[in-house]
Amino acid sequence: MASNSLGRIFRITTAGESHGAGMGVIIDGCPAGIEIDTSFIQKELDRRRPGQSSITTQRKEGDKITIQSGVYEGKSTGAPILMLIPNEDSRPSDYDQVEQAFRPSHADYTYHQKYGTRDHRGGGRSSARETVNWVAAGAIAKMILHQAGIKINAAVSSVGSIQVEIPISAFDWEFAEQNPVRCPDPSTSISMLTLIEETRDSGDTIGGTVTCVIEGCPAGLGEPVFHKLHADLGHAMLSINACKGFEYGSGFEGSKMRGSEHNDVWSNADDGMKTTTNNSGGIQGGISNGMPIYFKVAFKPVSTLMTNQNTVDTAGDAVIIKGKGRHDPCVLPRAVPIVEALAALVLVDHWLLSKAYQ
Amino acid sequence: MASNSLGRIFRITTAGESHGAGMGVIIDGCPAGIEIDTSFIQKELDRRRPGQSSITTQRKEGDKITIQSGVYEGKSTGAPILMLIPNEDSRPSDYDQVEQAFRPSHADYTYHQKYGTRDHRGGGRSSARETVNWVAAGAIAKMILHQAGIKINAAVSSVGSIQVEIPISAFDWEFAEQNPVRCPDPSTSISMLTLIEETRDSGDTIGGTVTCVIEGCPAGLGEPVFHKLHADLGHAMLSINACKGFEYGSGFEGSKMRGSEHNDVWSNADDGMKTTTNNSGGIQGGISNGMPIYFKVAFKPVSTLMTNQNTVDTAGDAVIIKGKGRHDPCVLPRAVPIVEALAALVLVDHWLLSKAYQ
Amino acid sequence: MASNSLGRIFRITTAGESHGAGMGVIIDGCPAGIEIDTSFIQKELDRRRPGQSSITTQRKEGDKITIQSGVYEGKSTGAPILMLIPNEDSRPSDYDQVEQAFRPSHADYTYHQKYGTRDHRGGGRSSARETVNWVAAGAIAKMILHQAGIKINAAVSSVGSIQVEIPISAFDWEFAEQNPVRCPDPSTSISMLTLIEETRDSGDTIGGTVTCVIEGCPAGLGEPVFHKLHADLGHAMLSINACKGFEYGSGFEGSKMRGSEHNDVWSNADDGMKTTTNNSGGIQGGISNGMPIYFKVAFKPVSTLMTNQNTVDTAGDAVIIKGKGRHDPCVLPRAVPIVEALAALVLVDHWLLSKAYQ
Amino acid sequence: MASNSLGRIFRITTAGESHGAGMGVIIDGCPAGIEIDTSFIQKELDRRRPGQSSITTQRKEGDKITIQSGVYEGKSTGAPILMLIPNEDSRPSDYDQVEQAFRPSHADYTYHQKYGTRDHRGGGRSSARETVNWVAAGAIAKMILHQAGIKINAAVSSVGSIQVEIPISAFDWEFAEQNPVRCPDPSTSISMLTLIEETRDSGDTIGGTVTCVIEGCPAGLGEPVFHKLHADLGHAMLSINACKGFEYGSGFEGSKMRGSEHNDVWSNADDGMKTTTNNSGGIQGGISNGMPIYFKVAFKPVSTLMTNQNTVDTAGDAVIIKGKGRHDPCVLPRAVPIVEALAALVLVDHWLLSKAYQ
Repeated sequence: MASNSLGRIFRITTAGESHGAGMGVIIDGCPAGIEIDTSFIQKELDRRRPGQSSITTQRKEGDKITIQSGVYEGKSTGAPILMLIPNEDSRPSDYDQVEQAFRPSHADYTYHQKYGTRDHRGGGRSSARETVNWVAAGAIAKMILHQAGIKINAAVSSVGSIQVEIPISAFDWEFAEQNPVRCPDPSTSISMLTLIEETRDSGDTIGGTVTCVIEGCPAGLGEPVFHKLHADLGHAMLSINACKGFEYGSGFEGSKMRGSEHNDVWSNADDGMKTTTNNSGGIQGGISNGMPIYFKVAFKPVSTLMTNQNTVDTAGDAVIIKGKGRHDPCVLPRAVPIVEALAALVLVDHWLLSKAYQ
Repeated sequence: MASNSLGRIFRITTAGESHGAGMGVIIDGCPAGIEIDTSFIQKELDRRRPGQSSITTQRKEGDKITIQSGVYEGKSTGAPILMLIPNEDSRPSDYDQVEQAFRPSHADYTYHQKYGTRDHRGGGRSSARETVNWVAAGAIAKMILHQAGIKINAAVSSVGSIQVEIPISAFDWEFAEQNPVRCPDPSTSISMLTLIEETRDSGDTIGGTVTCVIEGCPAGLGEPVFHKLHADLGHAMLSINACKGFEYGSGFEGSKMRGSEHNDVWSNADDGMKTTTNNSGGIQGGISNGMPIYFKVAFKPVSTLMTNQNTVDTAGDAVIIKGKGRHDPCVLPRAVPIVEALAALVLVDHWLLSKAYQ
Repeated sequence: MASNSLGRIFRITTAGESHGAGMGVIIDGCPAGIEIDTSFIQKELDRRRPGQSSITTQRKEGDKITIQSGVYEGKSTGAPILMLIPNEDSRPSDYDQVEQAFRPSHADYTYHQKYGTRDHRGGGRSSARETVNWVAAGAIAKMILHQAGIKINAAVSSVGSIQVEIPISAFDWEFAEQNPVRCPDPSTSISMLTLIEETRDSGDTIGGTVTCVIEGCPAGLGEPVFHKLHADLGHAMLSINACKGFEYGSGFEGSKMRGSEHNDVWSNADDGMKTTTNNSGGIQGGISNGMPIYFKVAFKPVSTLMTNQNTVDTAGDAVIIKGKGRHDPCVLPRAVPIVEALAALVLVDHWLLSKAYQ
Repeated sequence: MASNSLGRIFRITTAGESHGAGMGVIIDGCPAGIEIDTSFIQKELDRRRPGQSSITTQRKEGDKITIQSGVYEGKSTGAPILMLIPNEDSRPSDYDQVEQAFRPSHADYTYHQKYGTRDHRGGGRSSARETVNWVAAGAIAKMILHQAGIKINAAVSSVGSIQVEIPISAFDWEFAEQNPVRCPDPSTSISMLTLIEETRDSGDTIGGTVTCVIEGCPAGLGEPVFHKLHADLGHAMLSINACKGFEYGSGFEGSKMRGSEHNDVWSNADDGMKTTTNNSGGIQGGISNGMPIYFKVAFKPVSTLMTNQNTVDTAGDAVIIKGKGRHDPCVLPRAVPIVEALAALVLVDHWLLSKAYQ
């Protein structure tokens, strides 16, 4: 069923498989007159790109984007923007052994059951290669939000059991972009990096979390009752490969609190209405309240291991497989721009929608 | 913006405010020929009803449902089913003091900012009274799923810091329905109850989590990439009032694991393909794999306290408010049927959609 | 499948059957702060009401509307507006004879085939009673458009072969409302009335067309390529019971013309850009151009005749049926407010959408 | 606003401008396992292609399609199918003169007003070049419908005032494809051709109608009340460039009839339930009844003339323009495959949806 679209009035529709000809995304509903800075799109893609450091997959993809339509003389025209990103370094033969086997915790079995067939090459459509489409589209969303004063930053807040302990307000976004883990806290980044390297060297993988902060969002974005801002953000984040959970504001910790401890008290400061705490995560009743929005996304460890694993093939027989191909020991660093891109796509849709009612 | 609908081909659209004339829901896309057992709908509503025990709000709502359309001679006709539930025990005057005040961690300020006006009576549209619509519609979804062999159960898995420690497979669903906390573990239920009572008696409130399990779901439900089954479940759960987080399968804990520990190994048992563990939570690549689906939903403590709280009014002046009205010290027990109802609504939509492609 | 909704951000969802408990409509996406004039809604319903003249069905429906939600202290709150209209004068027994028979050119056979069951009483969901929902919702749409300076008028432009020959600019809208045929041309109204009366007296029915004109619509409404303004209008009009065709601007006549004759030449008049002719019907490339929008809707004759007709019953046997019940010999006069209502619903949706991009 | 998608579960999303890099379409929701015959897609594109005869535009477009995704080893995988068609023979300089002028009855002025900017080259997004996307996607829809026994044929039923007078049942579909006008009646085709040639030679253009017939459609397709089969067909047809009207079954002529003349009487023939006449056009109450579906689409004359026309430029000054470029004197012959393609897209969506409820 048609399900490769995200957004209501600013909507992306995506296509492409890991080891097919390439990826493609149509942005439908981009306002006209936006200056489309292709170097910024490319920069965002580079943040997601494989091979950017020693702890990411060594697949070599230039991820060079072509804009096919919707942009004329450097500006959006209001027409749909089709962007193409070719697959350059696909190696389908890496996947010959899994053509008939169901890899553990991959989507092999479920695609097989659902479609009766599958493009086994690198997971086909279920591959995280799809996220290149989101990052490209998200870059354009960011350009629009930038003009509206809305700023989105994400960083890796935990790898395995190693967590960033500093408060969100102390996150160093610049540092985050400069270390290979994308950790916003210098003191934690080294131990995270060490953990990932150790994990990689043992042929294993490891999970973690990404925290995202949205600043400058005006009050009033989000729609009751089934398009609450946090519900749309959660839906988008849960669409990311390997995502296992989403929480915003106080999140699961908040469920342990008492109301007297959790409630955010309003005060009318010189610079406007503010809450003295922000357990609400900038969203109340599904609508932004003007405070910073923040949320956390949990990712499981990558399923492809460089060690032997037992599984079953399509004939129902037991087989042993071992990852070939080129894989990330930890998706977290590359998940950062993906989380930001989806957040931008959700925000720009709500921001445009809110204008319809002003 | 139109945002009070959930679902794609089996879709509900809802209306109503806490202290208005009543609630209403239209189910659009219900298959024809379903026997509509109104006593079952009523039973589900009774599970959500206020006043059902000493630890729920004492508001007295009969929640008697009327089916206005779409059912003829006891069976669905394929036409939209409009159900009405009147508000009987509304006491708008309980809210006079907050007509001008923004209650902490409620949606008062955000509705005010978004709409320029608000129905302050009991939160108006932002009230959890809305969930009565979902439970009524969910009851019909459950009837359909029942025929398809899909069974949905939820229970309270934590209150504050008290957690159910037994595995999901040991949950006692019958017991859960028989104790006021809806805890699936007899040994934990007493301490949970004590905690809620203590909290209530101190005028405070407390949060917790609900765990939901879906059994009998065939492999193949869920749609890549933006209608993954868990993403649609997450979106629905995050739409519940006071929800702060959603995780499925291994969830946030899974983010701390290594791949070798987390991967679910396939085995071809006598009774078909199974995974030996179920960290995937029954969903891989966004598609059900035939194993039990399970997820957890985090709820913050209720924002209305029976103690004094500082806040600000619409004029920007500091004021002190104190809950009147009748409120739950802990929403968890009543959240159980709500979680189940939304899960049923998501499942039935995906189940029907999957048939289109068979 | 969910299909009882119209509109994208201002969306109605409807329910109800001809001889069930009543009708209901939810407006989702109505802006907050709109003064809801219930007497105007009632007035619009009265224009559609059965029994308003000697040439309409004698079914007696007060069509008294109740607003259940979404309006507080006389103004819309931004929450969904649920309106209910009870069925007061239903006489299901009038339809006993057709419980097993498929009435010619009704939806009896198709509903039976699609749903395996049907509510035969007065056509159930396929009845034009549904349109009461649209007129109620359309009244609120008109209130919003009124503030935006957009004015919608419709009138009967033909009955059978009798056509209004005066140009649209000469239509007398006030006169249209004062004669039972709703003909905008005094000289034609008498012959139309006579034709309808003759037809009625012979137990027969007759078709005709309604022409609708939208004035004050700013340039820029409508969305390429699959939500062109005229395509959305056409879709809405073709949703009306008994509708057989839709054309806008020059319409089918335009297909006979040469380009040199058909093209609308631009001129820059003192009062802004105008075309010297308006074969475009105020819409070019699917987008309003600031000129009056006009379109025509064709209705077939009512299928229920007061004479004997051959048909087949559910057992496949030949039977003879004859209309009982109370039916219109010509739907055209009552179709006028329905056409206007749907036009208003389409326009308000596009008008709000256009604001999102300003 | 996002509006470049058609369909609900089988949905296309399109992009591209007349004189940009090329066109692209994503089909989302194509069932897995369909054999994708690219030579058939190409054949359909060739039917729409410019330069195919002396009475079509001489623009030379190979319209060679590339399938980027969603097809593996010759079969659909269930993943979105992205197809690209490059623009090879674009000549943007042909449009230099209209960069500042608003061409009469084109979308120049409305795009300018809506977007504040426009890609003037050949109409940009408003060009009928877009329809190449529809024909490519429609070809795949036809392959699916073919397996379901549903057959779609269209032909030119009038050019200017010259109309095909034979009944639809006598249409010669093979002949239609063999004459340049795509007229289904040999005796009329010559006079149509002569008329088009005369019109072309005088630098003028002419309109006409296309009639489409759908055979083999089972009873039960179409959804009350806002996705009636004919309303969805009408919506799709009205999305075609230059379309001015849509009617199905008896259409506008039906509005002149009496009920006793118009009603289609059911009879239970040896080969099942049939109506003795088919004024309903195969659709009753918005749902297919098993009889042939037929409808007619009106097209205005092409707006670009090879003669001088007065108009106004963006500065508001009067200017004279004259078509350069390469244009069709009559779009009708090339509209035939476009009408068929959209009909196929609407039908396949409804056909899949109907399966969800079986």
